[in-house]
Order: sequence, then structure tokens, then C-alpha cells
Amino acid sequence: MKTLLEKIVRECSNEWKSGRVATYIPELGKGRADASGLSVYSLSSGPASAGDTGSPFTMQSVSKVASLALALETLGEEKVFSAVGMAALADPFNSIMRLESDAPHRPHNPLINSGAIAVLSLLPWTDGGEKFEAVRDMAARLMAKPGLEIDEAVYLSEKETGNRNRALAWFLKSVGNLEGDVEEILDVYFRQCSLLTDCTDLALLGATLAAGGRNPVTGEQVTSCGTARIVRTIMATCGMYDGSGEFAVSVGIPAKSGVGGGISAAVPGKMGIGAWGPALDKRGNSAAGLAMLKRLSEELGLRIY
Amino acid sequence: MKTLLEKIVRECSNEWKSGRVATYIPELGKGRADASGLSVYSLSSGPASAGDTGSPFTMQSVSKVASLALALETLGEEKVFSAVGMAALADPFNSIMRLESDAPHRPHNPLINSGAIAVLSLLPWTDGGEKFEAVRDMAARLMAKPGLEIDEAVYLSEKETGNRNRALAWFLKSVGNLEGDVEEILDVYFRQCSLLTDCTDLALLGATLAAGGRNPVTGEQVTSCGTARIVRTIMATCGMYDGSGEFAVSVGIPAKSGVGGGISAAVPGKMGIGAWGPALDKRGNSAAGLAMLKRLSEELGLRIY
Amino acid sequence: MKTLLEKIVRECSNEWKSGRVATYIPELGKGRADASGLSVYSLSSGPASAGDTGSPFTMQSVSKVASLALALETLGEEKVFSAVGMAALADPFNSIMRLESDAPHRPHNPLINSGAIAVLSLLPWTDGGEKFEAVRDMAARLMAKPGLEIDEAVYLSEKETGNRNRALAWFLKSVGNLEGDVEEILDVYFRQCSLLTDCTDLALLGATLAAGGRNPVTGEQVTSCGTARIVRTIMATCGMYDGSGEFAVSVGIPAKSGVGGGISAAVPGKMGIGAWGPALDKRGNSAAGLAMLKRLSEELGLRIY
Amino acid sequence: MKTLLEKIVRECSNEWKSGRVATYIPELGKGRADASGLSVYSLSSGPASAGDTGSPFTMQSVSKVASLALALETLGEEKVFSAVGMAALADPFNSIMRLESDAPHRPHNPLINSGAIAVLSLLPWTDGGEKFEAVRDMAARLMAKPGLEIDEAVYLSEKETGNRNRALAWFLKSVGNLEGDVEEILDVYFRQCSLLTDCTDLALLGATLAAGGRNPVTGEQVTSCGTARIVRTIMATCGMYDGSGEFAVSVGIPAKSGVGGGISAAVPGKMGIGAWGPALDKRGNSAAGLAMLKRLSEELGLRIY
Repeated sequence: MKTLLEKIVRECSNEWKSGRVATYIPELGKGRADASGLSVYSLSSGPASAGDTGSPFTMQSVSKVASLALALETLGEEKVFSAVGMAALADPFNSIMRLESDAPHRPHNPLINSGAIAVLSLLPWTDGGEKFEAVRDMAARLMAKPGLEIDEAVYLSEKETGNRNRALAWFLKSVGNLEGDVEEILDVYFRQCSLLTDCTDLALLGATLAAGGRNPVTGEQVTSCGTARIVRTIMATCGMYDGSGEFAVSVGIPAKSGVGGGISAAVPGKMGIGAWGPALDKRGNSAAGLAMLKRLSEELGLRIY
Repeated sequence: MKTLLEKIVRECSNEWKSGRVATYIPELGKGRADASGLSVYSLSSGPASAGDTGSPFTMQSVSKVASLALALETLGEEKVFSAVGMAALADPFNSIMRLESDAPHRPHNPLINSGAIAVLSLLPWTDGGEKFEAVRDMAARLMAKPGLEIDEAVYLSEKETGNRNRALAWFLKSVGNLEGDVEEILDVYFRQCSLLTDCTDLALLGATLAAGGRNPVTGEQVTSCGTARIVRTIMATCGMYDGSGEFAVSVGIPAKSGVGGGISAAVPGKMGIGAWGPALDKRGNSAAGLAMLKRLSEELGLRIY
Repeated sequence: MKTLLEKIVRECSNEWKSGRVATYIPELGKGRADASGLSVYSLSSGPASAGDTGSPFTMQSVSKVASLALALETLGEEKVFSAVGMAALADPFNSIMRLESDAPHRPHNPLINSGAIAVLSLLPWTDGGEKFEAVRDMAARLMAKPGLEIDEAVYLSEKETGNRNRALAWFLKSVGNLEGDVEEILDVYFRQCSLLTDCTDLALLGATLAAGGRNPVTGEQVTSCGTARIVRTIMATCGMYDGSGEFAVSVGIPAKSGVGGGISAAVPGKMGIGAWGPALDKRGNSAAGLAMLKRLSEELGLRIY
Repeated sequence: MKTLLEKIVRECSNEWKSGRVATYIPELGKGRADASGLSVYSLSSGPASAGDTGSPFTMQSVSKVASLALALETLGEEKVFSAVGMAALADPFNSIMRLESDAPHRPHNPLINSGAIAVLSLLPWTDGGEKFEAVRDMAARLMAKPGLEIDEAVYLSEKETGNRNRALAWFLKSVGNLEGDVEEILDVYFRQCSLLTDCTDLALLGATLAAGGRNPVTGEQVTSCGTARIVRTIMATCGMYDGSGEFAVSVGIPAKSGVGGGISAAVPGKMGIGAWGPALDKRGNSAAGLAMLKRLSEELGLRIY
């Protein structure tokens, strides 16, 4: 496996050139565009890595997997999906139009920004600090990484520049689809986006979901089997922003990307994959990550469809 | 004139039944639905009134006329209309969709909520308090009403529930079309919407605009002739929300309405009209006000088209 | 007057450079981009012209004024405006989106393409040929031009390439807002767009509307006074496509433009104006025409607002 | 298996009550609302059926699976997906808005109406009759049903009332995304929608796709393995109209529905399923079909996610 991963990393070493490092959060713009890493955590044979799999980067939207899992565990499927939909959206991740045009003004799914914010507002902790700790704890257990930290500089940068997310949150508030204090919920959102991970963490995150919620390293049943399945399904249909449909055809694995350049993928019953490369395509998905996952999926026949 | 106004008020006394008092700002919901008043300030023959023209109500969107006039006077036409457009919009006054769908994400005109907020952000006072005082002063001079007060209960109610306006403002901020502190600008907006006027005030406001910016009571040249003309034109095309086109056909006079139930109309070179009735049609325009203005326009042949 | 018009034509002789001749109808693309003409028909002092006012061009959307007038005369205001709205639209003239998004799927106004097609479908002649003759007759009487001809080459070009209009018409048909045979109605539409006029014709068209429907040359009362007023009003709010609001501020006269480069304007009670220049701005309005009308409006103080 | 299917049909016998038989194609409205059938074609154990699996109904949108497969086989993936996208759409199946709002005005996927029409226009037969025969032949081979007929009454009804599809096709034509004669392509579309199948046919259709394109009854390799996989993937993300995301969570199998009440599902490597019930939910999917597929997926653990 390690040899295969190294071959793929090498062969995809120029893919980053088609992308650009995200700059809308200024602190993210400092990433090294040509870095890349690829990790696998196989449920049968354990971990393997190639490339730069130890460099830390922020989870960004990959963290939405953790908050969605937490919401499903604590509130149940019915309550979560009465607040957000399950529909893929052919709009950018931060779009507000469809919130207004489509009654009942409910975010289309929990993995776009408005949906993730709505999910956070649902969580049964009223204090923002406790809410964030619960999300961090879920993420830590999914990745067997107890000392999960946030990147303070990125967090402050997100908080300072996250005005589109403020618009989304206030819109949700105005139509009665957001409980609690808007700025406090956004603070949790900005914090969870700033959680620091690396490629191997994201491989284990995928592996835990692939294993029905049971972390293969710690042995802990972090989520129920049903929660893990729902999360994998939503990742499959909505995980790669408006590129989700294309990703299903080209790669065919449930996955979630983040603008930090990370992607976590879950091959049901088989393995988790973490891919990283900070240069993003126009939809916000890691250019190198997409290329490496495509190669890996083809080589190992991982498509679920 | 007074006899005519009394006849019109009497004949339109049931028109309020087709409308409903605004309740989205809870404090507004307390208005007496069946009240109505009609005032004229003729540039040749002075004031005349009928009905309940002394009861105070909040200006709401009618105040956007004052802030637009102030912006044009202090910044000039070019600067104002590089920040907001001049196009009528077939959407509700608080719509956010078109801000996202239409590049350059500029409010379509200065009389919808997003446009009025953008205009406030432009005004050359950085302190919110000073900015509000400048708007209040402009409104006071247009209406010859030095002691213009705000309704504190309405103001607090707007501030507490104005979340859609917060979404609009943060969206503008996120696309670089809003300078300054968002909540401070919104505070100015909520305050100006809460300014207390009556029917006779709105008639004089219209008369000052009709007279090319010269207040016929005080004799003060409040705005330049060009500013008054631009304001009248924007009122004609955009002043009645998404009912502006229909109003042009049925009434045919530049006018601006507010959800407090007031309408101020300016017949160029002839007169100003103030109409009031708290029950609103589905677009947010005073039901009785529309009916009375239509009758008055027909009786006196006031259409400009 | 003639001296003034000549000065304006001369001073605006480079304005065409900011525009482009329409090419979406291939036959239109053959127009000479730098031609321009300006005609006035004053209700007090008769005609005056400058520039190239005798060259023929096709009416295109200016013809919608004639079909709207005909519909109002034969069907009445109520029937016409139950089929189309009166709202200006901040979308291009051939847009279909809002037809779907806004119930009741009614064209927003009679001067955008979908609205003009809907108006044609209403006309009380079932045969397409008769329908066209009725529109041509109305146009001929408004312009005192009995031998009004169509440009066969432009007509065939429109018919061959008018697929967006076919989409609009079939959409209207699918939502029950179009009576009759779609291709037959479109044929009337393509024919009326191809009617050949010149600058002096459009000046007289405007003059007839400005005179309350009475043609000042023939003395015929072509439409009722009320119809002329409604047409002028709709021209003022919707006549210049999505540039109508800006035109109201910069020129301030009811007017209708066509992609053939012509504009007909009606100054109520005063005069009609015909302006022509084939190079169009990005909204489809004649670049030279806009500039000349702005100058003329300023020089003569023609603004209605 | 047969016992299980009978139990499911019985337990879901009231599900049709939440739906309504399609009436927008008048001929469809004649269907018996409470009929239902469920068929399985297992790649290991062959066919099994319960309920009314022999009654004929029209394929409607299920036929898009055949035309997509044909296009992929004859033109290749690249060419097909340069004409249509792969993105799920949160709009109704006949929506036109997004075609205009989203450049490059390409249908979002091949399973919505506009996308299916665009795919038909691509097929390398210029004559409409030959084009239809090619689609019919592909459908017949996928279902091992040589004598595949169309329901003439439904076909004529579709042809007469398919005006929204005409609007979609003309729009595509107007933006250069449709080759050939519009009405001729639509005729192919209306014909393929009118192909008569039953539940067992749709089970075999799914089974052939599930078996990588090899029909398990005839043994013919109808499509390449890659084509079958792409079709299954697009079915998974886009097959159930705007209910695709919800279907992925609740059922979790690639499937395509039609307004005739049929659904064909393909469980990769395992089986095909045909479900039928004419009463549709508000998105156009068979109410009984959804319920039966959910039960079957749960009982047999068929989810792919």
C-alpha cells in the first residue's frame, strides 16, 4: 500500500498547478501551494502514508462531518433533518439565494455553510464554549486525537472576515431557523473550522465512519452504526460542494473536503483516506486531493456505485 | 381643497379592510387599522387636511428619502450611484437573492432596504450618532419640524427583530459594498425608520421636493434643485416597493411609502401630499393611502406621465 | 430647433463608439455603426430633424408600443393587465427565469419580449395574418405612414434565429398564459419587429402619444387619451429594458427603444422625439440615441419628474 | 424472496394514499391509483415478483437511463458530459430557471428533462425515426424485451401537452446547446417516454446495470462495464429528481423513477429491482414505490453507502 501511495503522490505532484490556495480567509493564503499528502487507514491492514502527511492544516468544512455526527447522535435523524435538508445543491457553499427562494428557507443540506451553522444551533448546549467542546470532543474521538487544537491565527482570521457566514446566519435567524445567539454560534463555527489536523487524522476519521462509527485505533464506538451510515451518505451526495456529482462519477467514494486543502473519504467497510493539498479548484476542493483520490479509487477499485 | 380631501377620506374609509397592519415589527402591530388621513401642501395655496392627520406614526421607509437626499447633497450623484443602482426591482423590499445573483452585488436602488443601508454607510460621518443626527436634521429641514423625535418603543422593536436587515448588511459587508461597523450603521437605520411624523409632515416633505428642494414654509433651500429632481425620479420608479410600476399607472406621481402606513408624494412644481393608513397591502403599501392618492390624482389631474 | 438638433447630433457623433451593433439577429449586424439621426415633432411648432433621419431601420421593440396600444384599445386595461404585469424588471429583455420563479408566471410587463408575445396572443383576431395587419395598421396610424412595410430579410432572419422567443412563448403556453398557435403568434411578433421606419416616423409616434393619442399630422384620434397615457407610463417605467431606471434619472422622458437602434420618446403635451443609432449599449439601447436624448432633455428642460 | 416481496407489497398497500396520479399528461391520469407491484431480478437467484407486476405502464423518465447509456456507448463519456453536467439539482425536473442563471446554460444532469433532451440531440443519427429506433433498441436489450411498444395514446397526449419540454428545448437551441430539429428531437423524447414496460422489465433493466451492462437473461453485454457504472452513479445522485438526496439516505440504491409510477433500481453486483405504483409524491416519485424500496433495502441490507 505504501508503495502505491508513493507512486500516486509522485504522479500527481503537478496537479496543484491547476488550483489556487484559498485567500478569502487571509491566514489560509499562507499555505504552501505545492504540498501534498495521502494517507490510508485500512480496516484490515492498518495505516499507510506517502508525501507530506504530518504537516498540520485546518479542517475547515471537513469539521462539518463531526458536528453532523454529533447532532445525529444527540438529537436523532428526524430532528436534524427537520432543520436542514438532504439535497445536493448546485450552488457554491456559501450561497444565500436558495435560502430565500426555496420555502421553507431551510438549508439544503448539513454540509453547506448555512446547513452546518443551522446544525450547530440545534446542538443541546446553550453555552457556546460547551458547544464547541462537544464538537471538538466528537472530532477528537473520531480521529483518536485527544489533544485536538485550533489554529488561533486562522480562527481570528475567520472570525474577522467571516461576513458571508454572518449574512447566512442572520438570514436563518430572520426566518426563524436559527436558535440562540448568532455571534456565539458563529464563534463555534469559526473555531471548529480552525481545528488542526493532518492527513493521517483525516484517514482515521474516514476509517471510523467506514467502520460504522467504531474507531479502529481506540476501539471506541464513537457513533452508532446508523449515524455513520447517514454521514457517509450525505458525504457521498453533498460532500464536495457543487462538485459532488462529478466526484461521484470520477471517484465514487463518500468524502468531505475543506478549503484548508484536506479531504476525508470513507470506503464503507474497507478504509478511510486522508488527502491533502492546499491549492483548490474553483469549487473549493483540493486539486491534488481530487487527482490522488481518483487514482487511488481506480487502482483499488473503491467505487461504491 | 379641504372639501375635496374630506370627500376622498370619507369615500375611502373602507379601503383599509383590504390590508393588514404590519406585524413583523411587533411594536407596529399596535396601530389602529382603520385610521386614515390625507394632507396636501399646495405650492400655490398652502396646506389643507382631512381625516386623522395629526396622529403620529413612524416614517419607516419614507425616511429613505431623507437619507438619499443627504447622501446626494454631501457626496454627489456619481458617488451615490456607484454604490447603489437606479433600477426598480420586482422583488420584496427586503429581498437578498438578487444581491447575490447580480454582479456587482450592488443594491438595485437606494429605496429598498439593502440600498438604504448602503447609502447610510457612505455618509461622511464615521460616528453612528453623528450620522443619525445628520439624517434627522435633513428630515427635519425637509419637513420644517425641528423637534423630530423617534419612537423609542418602535426603535427598540426594530433593533431587536431586524434580523433580515442584518443579513442584508452582512452580505453587503462580505462583498465589500459596506464601509464601517455593521451594527452601528443598522442602528442609524433603525433610528431613522422610527422617526415620528404625521400626515401634514409628509405633505410638506413632498412639497419641498416638489419645489426643487426649497421648503415652502421655512423658505430654506434644503437641497439643490438637482438633488430634489433625482429623489423625485427615484421615488417615481422605485418608491412603492415592487408596486412601483402599478402605482405609476394608477396614480402617476413620485411617492415613497413606509410600513408605518405613511406615503409622501411630490407633484413637481405643484404640491406635496401626505397620506396615511396603517393597514398595508401585501407589498407593504398603505391600502387606504393608495386609494386616496388614486382618487386625488384623478380629481386634480396630477399624473406626470 | 433644427440648429439645436444639428448641434446635438454633431456633439454626440462619437457616442456610437461605446456601443455595438446587434448581431444576434444576423441581418441586423449589417447596420452602419456610426450612423445617427435625431428628429423632433413639436406639438406647437411641428417637425425638425438633423443627421441621418431618412435611413430606414426596423422598429424591433419599439413596435411593442403599437401592439400594446392596440391591445388596450380593443381589450381594455383590465384584460391586458391581467395577462401581463406593470413592473419594471431588472433582467435582460429576453429573460425567462422570472417567468418560472414568480407566480403566477405572468410576464412582468408588456414591453419585455415575453410580455409583448403575451399581448399579441390576446388580440381578438384568431388568424395570424389579420392579427399582424391590425398591429401594422395601428403602427401606421400612430406614425401617419400608410405604406408601412417590413424588411423581409430581417423578418426571415428573426424567424430563423428567434429561438429564445420560442422558448418564452412555449413557456407561457405551458403555464396557460398563451392562447392560440405559438408559431403563428411568433410570426406576428417577428413581422412587427421587422417593420421599417425612420427617425421622423418615431418622432411622430412619440408626438401622437404625447398628444393623448391624436396624431398631429392626420388629426386622427388614433387611441383614447387614457390608452396614450398608460402607454406613456409603461414606457417611462419599462421602456428602456433594464436601463429604464437609469434612463429616468438621466433623461426623464417616457421612451421605448429597439435593437434596430431606434428610440421613440413622448414628452406629454409637448413633443415626440425619434433618435437613431445602430450601435447599442450592453442593455440593447442605442448608445448615440441615449446621448442625444440626454442632451436634448437637458437643453429643453423636458424631464417629467 | 417471493415471500418477502409479498409481505412488503402487503404492508405498503396503503402508501399510495399519500400520493396522486400524474395528470399533467392527461392520458396518465387514467391510471389506477392503488395498483402496485414489486419485482426483483437477483444476479444469483433470478427473478421473483409480488403484486401487480404484469400490468403495463409507460417508462417516462426511466427511459432516460436507456438514452444515457446509448449516448455513453456511442459518443463516450467526455462528449456526453461536455453537453450536460453531473450535478444533482434541487429544482423540479422540468425547471428552466437554472438553465438561464448558470453559465454555460448546460443542463445540470442527463436525467432531468432538459438534460435528457440534450442527450437525445447528441445521438449520432440525424433522422428522428432512426434515433428513436436506436433508443428503443437499447431499452429492449437492457430489458430483454424485443417487442418493446409505445402507448400511442400516451405518446399523443405527451406530444400535445409537452409545452414545457418545448420551452426547455428551444431555450437549449437558443444558447447553442441543441443540435438538430427541435420538434423532431422532442418527438423522440415523447416516444421514449411512452415505451410500455412492467415491473419485471424494470427489475431486469436494473439487473443488467447491476451486472456491469451484461443482461443476465440474454447474456448479452449490452453496455460496457464503465457505461453501466456511470449510469448507476448518475442514477444514485440524480435519479429521483429533487428527492435524490433524501432517497440516498432512506433507500441508498441507484435508481430512476418515472411519472408513470415505475422505479428501476440497480444494486451493484447483486440485483435489479422494479417497483411500481401510479400515485406520485409531490416530486414525481411513486409513493408506493418509495415505501417498498425502503422496506426491501432495509430487509436485505442493500444500501451502498
